[in-house]
Amino acid sequence: MTQIDTAAVPAAAAYRALEDRFARISRIGDALGILHWDMQTTMPDGAAAGRGEAMAALEVLSHEMLTDAAVPDLLGEAEAADGLDGWQQANLREMRRAWRNAEVLPGELVAARARAVSACEMVWRTARAEADFAKLLPSLSEVLRLEREAGAAKAAATGLSLYDALLDDYEPGGRSARIDQMFDELAGFLPEFTAAVLERQAAQPAPVVPTGPFPAAAQQALGQRLMEAVGFDFTRGRLDVSLHPFCGGADDDVRITTRYDEADFLRALMGVLHETGHAMYEQGRPRVWRGQPVGDARGMVLHESQSLLVEMQVCRDRPFLGFAAPLMAEAFGGDGAAWAADNLYRLSTRVSRGFIRVDADEVTYPAHVILRYRLERALLSGEMELADLPGAWNEGMAELVGVVPPDDRLGCLQDIHWPGGSWGYFPTYTLGAMAAAQLFRAARDQDAEIEPALARGDFAPLMAWLRTNVHEQGSRLSTDETLEAATGSPLGTAAYIRHLKARYLAT
Amino acid sequence: MTQIDTAAVPAAAAYRALEDRFARISRIGDALGILHWDMQTTMPDGAAAGRGEAMAALEVLSHEMLTDAAVPDLLGEAEAADGLDGWQQANLREMRRAWRNAEVLPGELVAARARAVSACEMVWRTARAEADFAKLLPSLSEVLRLEREAGAAKAAATGLSLYDALLDDYEPGGRSARIDQMFDELAGFLPEFTAAVLERQAAQPAPVVPTGPFPAAAQQALGQRLMEAVGFDFTRGRLDVSLHPFCGGADDDVRITTRYDEADFLRALMGVLHETGHAMYEQGRPRVWRGQPVGDARGMVLHESQSLLVEMQVCRDRPFLGFAAPLMAEAFGGDGAAWAADNLYRLSTRVSRGFIRVDADEVTYPAHVILRYRLERALLSGEMELADLPGAWNEGMAELVGVVPPDDRLGCLQDIHWPGGSWGYFPTYTLGAMAAAQLFRAARDQDAEIEPALARGDFAPLMAWLRTNVHEQGSRLSTDETLEAATGSPLGTAAYIRHLKARYLAT
Repeated sequence: MTQIDTAAVPAAAAYRALEDRFARISRIGDALGILHWDMQTTMPDGAAAGRGEAMAALEVLSHEMLTDAAVPDLLGEAEAADGLDGWQQANLREMRRAWRNAEVLPGELVAARARAVSACEMVWRTARAEADFAKLLPSLSEVLRLEREAGAAKAAATGLSLYDALLDDYEPGGRSARIDQMFDELAGFLPEFTAAVLERQAAQPAPVVPTGPFPAAAQQALGQRLMEAVGFDFTRGRLDVSLHPFCGGADDDVRITTRYDEADFLRALMGVLHETGHAMYEQGRPRVWRGQPVGDARGMVLHESQSLLVEMQVCRDRPFLGFAAPLMAEAFGGDGAAWAADNLYRLSTRVSRGFIRVDADEVTYPAHVILRYRLERALLSGEMELADLPGAWNEGMAELVGVVPPDDRLGCLQDIHWPGGSWGYFPTYTLGAMAAAQLFRAARDQDAEIEPALARGDFAPLMAWLRTNVHEQGSRLSTDETLEAATGSPLGTAAYIRHLKARYLAT
Repeated sequence: MTQIDTAAVPAAAAYRALEDRFARISRIGDALGILHWDMQTTMPDGAAAGRGEAMAALEVLSHEMLTDAAVPDLLGEAEAADGLDGWQQANLREMRRAWRNAEVLPGELVAARARAVSACEMVWRTARAEADFAKLLPSLSEVLRLEREAGAAKAAATGLSLYDALLDDYEPGGRSARIDQMFDELAGFLPEFTAAVLERQAAQPAPVVPTGPFPAAAQQALGQRLMEAVGFDFTRGRLDVSLHPFCGGADDDVRITTRYDEADFLRALMGVLHETGHAMYEQGRPRVWRGQPVGDARGMVLHESQSLLVEMQVCRDRPFLGFAAPLMAEAFGGDGAAWAADNLYRLSTRVSRGFIRVDADEVTYPAHVILRYRLERALLSGEMELADLPGAWNEGMAELVGVVPPDDRLGCLQDIHWPGGSWGYFPTYTLGAMAAAQLFRAARDQDAEIEPALARGDFAPLMAWLRTNVHEQGSRLSTDETLEAATGSPLGTAAYIRHLKARYLAT
C-alpha cells in the first residue's frame, strides 16, 4: 500500500503523509464506532450527557485532522505524482472527496445543524407519539433550513444540484436525474403489479403463523447459527441487542444488533440476517487498504444491496428456507404445518399494503421510498412548503401504496430521517434493493454452484463471488462501475422487476 | 468553576483556556475508559490489534494536547493571576503536574517503554506458566532499564529521588522516606502478630465452607443487591464480567467487573464489594470539577483506601455480615451452620501464610507488599541485580511471610506489575489499607450512627462522611492533607495496627 515509484519522491512523501493522517482519522472512527455501539446497547442512562461530550470531542478532533491547513497542499502535491497505482489514485480521489465534504461546511453551520437535529429529534419523539405534526413543524423547519444551507454550500463547491449534493454524502456519485428515471419505471410498474400479486395471494390459503412464545435466548442462538452459515466471523464481530437494530463497530470488530419479540421470531431473525449482510461487507473490505478511504464501503446503495441480498434475495427464498425451516422448528420445539418450509416461505414473502415503511414487504416497500424521495426533493427545492407535508404525504400514499394513513403518526411522522438530518438518504433503500437483485442474478449466472449450495445452507460460493466483486473492491470504483464490472450493466430496474415477477407471480 | 476576579483578565483568560484544554483531554480519557472496559469484557479476540491501534491513537492525541507548546505559557500566565480561588489554584497545580509528567519524558522513551512492556508482558505469560525466570530476564531487564531512564528524567525535573519520581505517578506526594518508616513499623510488628493470630485461630474450630455450586447469575444478583446497599448508582455505572476484575469506565459511567467461581461465591462477592469501594470514590468526585484535574481522585493510596474500607473494614466485619448472611443464604438456597453470620465472619477473616499476594488475607498481605517494595527499590537503585531476584524473593518470603515458594511461578513471577511497567505501585496497596483503617476509625468516632447503620446494611451515614471528607475533595489537597483534615493526622500505622489487633486478637 505504500509501494510507490521512487522517481517521484516529494509527491510520494505527500501521499504517504496523507495515508498516515487518514489512518489516524480512521482509528478515531473506530473508537467512535465502539462508543456508539456501547451507547446503544450497554451504557447506563445517566452517562448519556458525558458520552455525548466524549463523542463530540472525538468528532471535533477528527474534523480538525481532516481540515488541517496542510491537507489541501498535500493533496495537490500527491495528485501531481506519477508513480501511484490505480488503488492509490482511487485512495487519493476519496481523500479529496472526504476533505472537500468536511472543508466545505463552515464550523458554525456544522454546530448549528448538530444542535438543530438534536433538538428536533427530541420533539419528534413526542410529536410522533401524539400524532401532532404541528408540534414538529418549527424545529423541522429549522433542520430543513440548515439542510438547504449545507446542500447549497456543497452544491457551490461541487457543481452538483442541491439535492445531489446532499445525496452524495450517502451515495457518492448518486444523481437524481438517474434516480428519477428508475423510480418512474418502478412507479409505473408497481401499482398494477401489486394488485396482481395481492389477487394471486388472496386465491391461495393464508400461511399458518407459528405460535410462540419464542424465548429470546433461543432466538439468539438460532440467529448466531444462521449468521455462521452466512459466514459471519465471530472472532471479529458480535451480535447484541439494541432498541433500533444496526450494524456498527470498528475494523475487525463488526457489531450487529437486533431486538427480540417473543411473540414473533421471524422478524428479529430476518433482521439479524439483514444486518449480517451489512456485516459481511464490512468484514470483507480489502484488508490491505484498512484505515484508508479507498478501503471503505462504497456507499449506502451497495451497503443496502448486501443486506437485502442476504435477507430478501436469499433468506426469504424457498431454497434457503428448505435448509432453515428444520433449524427453526428445532430451535423452538416447533411442529406441524406452521414449520414447513413452504409455509415459512409464504409467510416470509407475504405482501400487504401498509402504512409503515419498516414493516413493508418487498413489493410495497419501493412505493414508500419513492414517496419520500419525491417529497424531500420538493421540500428542499422549495416547491413544497413543509406545512403542506401531511396532505402531500397522504395523497402520495393513496397513489403509490394504495392506502391512506389515519393519522400522521402512521404517516409523515413515522421516520426519524428528516428530523435526524438525513435528507437524501431514502432513495438508497430501493436502489440497494435493485442492486441486490442485479448482483444475485449475475452471481448465479456466473457460478452455477451458488444456488444449490444455498439450498444446503452453504453460503461459501455466494460469498466468494461477493468478496471478489463487491466487498474487496472497497471504494476503488463508483457504484455503477462496480456493478458494471460485476454484472455487465450499471444499476437498473430490470433484474429487480424480473425478480419480483418471478417470486410473486411466478412469471 | 470559571468565576474569576475580572481584575486579572489576561491571567483569567489563560486559566480558562487551560480549563477548556483539560476538559477536552478528559473527554478523550473517558473514551479510552470505555474502550478499555470493552476490550476486557466484550471485544472479540480478532479485534485486539485494531483496538490497540485505536487506543494508541487517542493516547497520542491526548499527549499532544497536553504537551502542546502553548501549555507552559498558559500555565505561567495563569499562575500569575490574583483572582483564583483555592480550588482553581489547586486545579492549576494539578495541571502543571500533569503537564510536567507528560512533558518530561521524550517521545522515543515513551514509545520504547510501551513496546518493551508489551513484549515483556507476552513473555511473562509463558515464563510464569513455565516457572522459568531465566526466560523473562532479558525482556524484564529492558523494562527495568527504561523504567530507570524514565525515573531519572522525572527525578531531574522534580528534584525527587529516582524511586520517588516513579512512585509519584501513582501516589502524588508519596515519598519513600516516610514509607520506609511506616513499613519498618509494620515489618517489626507483623511476624510476631501473625504467629499469635494463627495460634489463636488454631485453637478455634475451623469455619464451615458453604458448598456450591453457586450459579453465576445468583452471584451477580446478590452482588448487585449489595452494591445497591453500599450506594452504587446503577444509572451511572455497571457490573460486568472480566478475567481480571477492575474499576474503570468514564465520568458518570463507572464500570466494575468481577469473575465468578461457581464453587466459591465469597471470593467474587468480596471482589465486587472491593471494586464498589473504588466506584463510590469515582461516582462521588466533585461534579462541579468534572473533567478538570482537581476533580480527579487524589491517588492510588486514597483509591485503595476506599475499596479496602468497603471490603475489609466493613464487609468482612461481623456487624455487616449479620445483615448480609441471610441474603447470601437466600441467594443460594443455603441452610445450616455454614450460613450463620459468625461462621461467614470467621471465613471472611481467615488467616494463613501463603505464596500468592492476591490470595492473601488482611494480616499477611502487608508482608507481600513490603517484600516487593524493598526489592523494587533495590532493583531500581542498582543495589541488586535482576538475575538475583528469585533468590532474594525467596529469602524475603521466608523472613516476612514465613513460607518459601516451591518455584518462581508461585514466587517472583506471580505479579504482572514489573513486566507491565508499574514500578513504584506496590506500596500503595498497604498504604491504602492503613488509610482505610484510619478513615473508618475517624468516621465512627465522628458519627455514632455509622456503625449501627452498617449492621442494618445501611451505608448512607458512612458514605455521607466519605463523600464530604474524601470523595468530594478530589485532588484539592494532598493525601496527607486530606487524611489530616478528615482524621486529625497524616497517614500512619496506628489505626491499622489497632484494627488488626482488635479484629484478630480481640485486644
